[in-house]
Amino acid sequence: MKSIAIIGGGVAGLSAAVYALRANAEVTLFEQFGLGGQTANLGEIENYPSYKSIEGWQLAQNMIDQAKALGLKTVRERVLSVTKGQQFLLRTDKGEYSFPAVVVATGTAHNKLGFEEPYVGKGVSYCATCDGNFYRGKAVAIAGGGTPAVREALYLADVCDKVYVIVPYEAFRAEEMAVNNLVSRSNVQVLYGSQVSEILCDDVVYGVKVFDGEVKTLDVSALFVAIGAQPVTDFLQVEGVQRKNGYVVVDDRCATGAEGLFAAGDVTNGPLKQIVTACGDGAKAGSFAAAYAGMISKGQK
Amino acid sequence: MKSIAIIGGGVAGLSAAVYALRANAEVTLFEQFGLGGQTANLGEIENYPSYKSIEGWQLAQNMIDQAKALGLKTVRERVLSVTKGQQFLLRTDKGEYSFPAVVVATGTAHNKLGFEEPYVGKGVSYCATCDGNFYRGKAVAIAGGGTPAVREALYLADVCDKVYVIVPYEAFRAEEMAVNNLVSRSNVQVLYGSQVSEILCDDVVYGVKVFDGEVKTLDVSALFVAIGAQPVTDFLQVEGVQRKNGYVVVDDRCATGAEGLFAAGDVTNGPLKQIVTACGDGAKAGSFAAAYAGMISKGQK
Repeated sequence: MKSIAIIGGGVAGLSAAVYALRANAEVTLFEQFGLGGQTANLGEIENYPSYKSIEGWQLAQNMIDQAKALGLKTVRERVLSVTKGQQFLLRTDKGEYSFPAVVVATGTAHNKLGFEEPYVGKGVSYCATCDGNFYRGKAVAIAGGGTPAVREALYLADVCDKVYVIVPYEAFRAEEMAVNNLVSRSNVQVLYGSQVSEILCDDVVYGVKVFDGEVKTLDVSALFVAIGAQPVTDFLQVEGVQRKNGYVVVDDRCATGAEGLFAAGDVTNGPLKQIVTACGDGAKAGSFAAAYAGMISKGQK
Repeated sequence: MKSIAIIGGGVAGLSAAVYALRANAEVTLFEQFGLGGQTANLGEIENYPSYKSIEGWQLAQNMIDQAKALGLKTVRERVLSVTKGQQFLLRTDKGEYSFPAVVVATGTAHNKLGFEEPYVGKGVSYCATCDGNFYRGKAVAIAGGGTPAVREALYLADVCDKVYVIVPYEAFRAEEMAVNNLVSRSNVQVLYGSQVSEILCDDVVYGVKVFDGEVKTLDVSALFVAIGAQPVTDFLQVEGVQRKNGYVVVDDRCATGAEGLFAAGDVTNGPLKQIVTACGDGAKAGSFAAAYAGMISKGQK
């Protein structure tokens, strides 16, 4: 019997599960929290192909139901390490497991301001491409000064009436061409050397306070936090896996540099982090991991 | 204003449209036939993440509705050529258009046996989901051994009294679960290592001859042809675009070798041709094409 492990129960992991299960693999999915990943925490989603609009939790639940109907087995344990012997050895907080093939789909953890948690979903977001459209024609702020922040700010500048960019440094630390593009926009105002000090919120966000030596108040309907994210790969101790800025490098089959180890979704170096790209990559990782495990089980590898 | 063209209205093109429209690009989609592409002709789909089961036409319609709600403009013309001057020039059967960025999502066209043309419409078909119902309660044959052939054969097995599957190889080259499902059907007979050598037809098809070393005659009312497909790229006359076995080579941003030209879906060299991978790639192509057109419109390229 061909068996594979999937580490991470977000949409990339669930899509990998659907494809591996339909290829007749036995699939064990390790997820320490609930299934659905970051998608389950998103509000309204308008860019997953086939839904004009769907709540994040609902979209995640649909994928969970689909994978479970196909026979997905989940193990609610935290994977502490993955090493490679004859097979891949997964050590969790509760036990040890071995598999001929593994899909890593652990995603990223957003860097946080530290005090925004209560306002997520009420106007605070970590994804302009996901949520910018809800603030069409309104004023918004975005915190961050790297390339992802600039990209998100450009997206918002196309959609919103006014965009305040709250840059923690004295200059952007981002691709110059994108920065030039951003600062040339008439509806963009950049606040350098500034920090968000407070979020103003009744039922929904109505402003943020910004500190740059003195305190200013910005009247905005949303705050986008784009101060970076970190791929979750600390458990991954397999030789041959290449990383780029911490992200797992994969080829067009979602294979890593270690034979039998695949990766999909936000944890990889893919250039567009979206639900549908995570699902597309998950399908590849699940399919090719199942095929690899099948070859192992037949002694062809 | 940033504007892009998308050539092809299947799921890759529709996903590209959704992403480009949400990035505030003006999108013109060229499709000579109806929207929805091959997906619209599929039967039950069980592997698009978030649906346990959905009819192909319904999934396609959902994506069409989503793109139209965002303001998609479609042009029902056939693109005869794409060339590159200062911009990309699209010549259609009715006019000429120019765009700073283009997404190619033209998919594939069915391979042919070579001698079946006179019998199409008299019992020969390329689409079981479209035409299978005409043969309810009768015996039919299907030629092919890949996943599409297996899917079509399963559809026919539900509808027809008897299904002969004429597999050109010694084994199926398809999703294992689907193959197991097919061969377990009591009304399915698989002929491995076999070729269709002749179609028997008066006013309508009444049989096929099959060769596997010797010639056998099958009494069937229809022959379904599912022997693969070729990418549709004959119109694409842009320098720098690389091809592999006819498929358009793209990088991880779905960019081709020609700046400003992107591709997504079955027309590309992607290693897994699925609805969700086409949608994931469409999202990339649409996003990066819109971003490129935006830079052009600001004189930054």
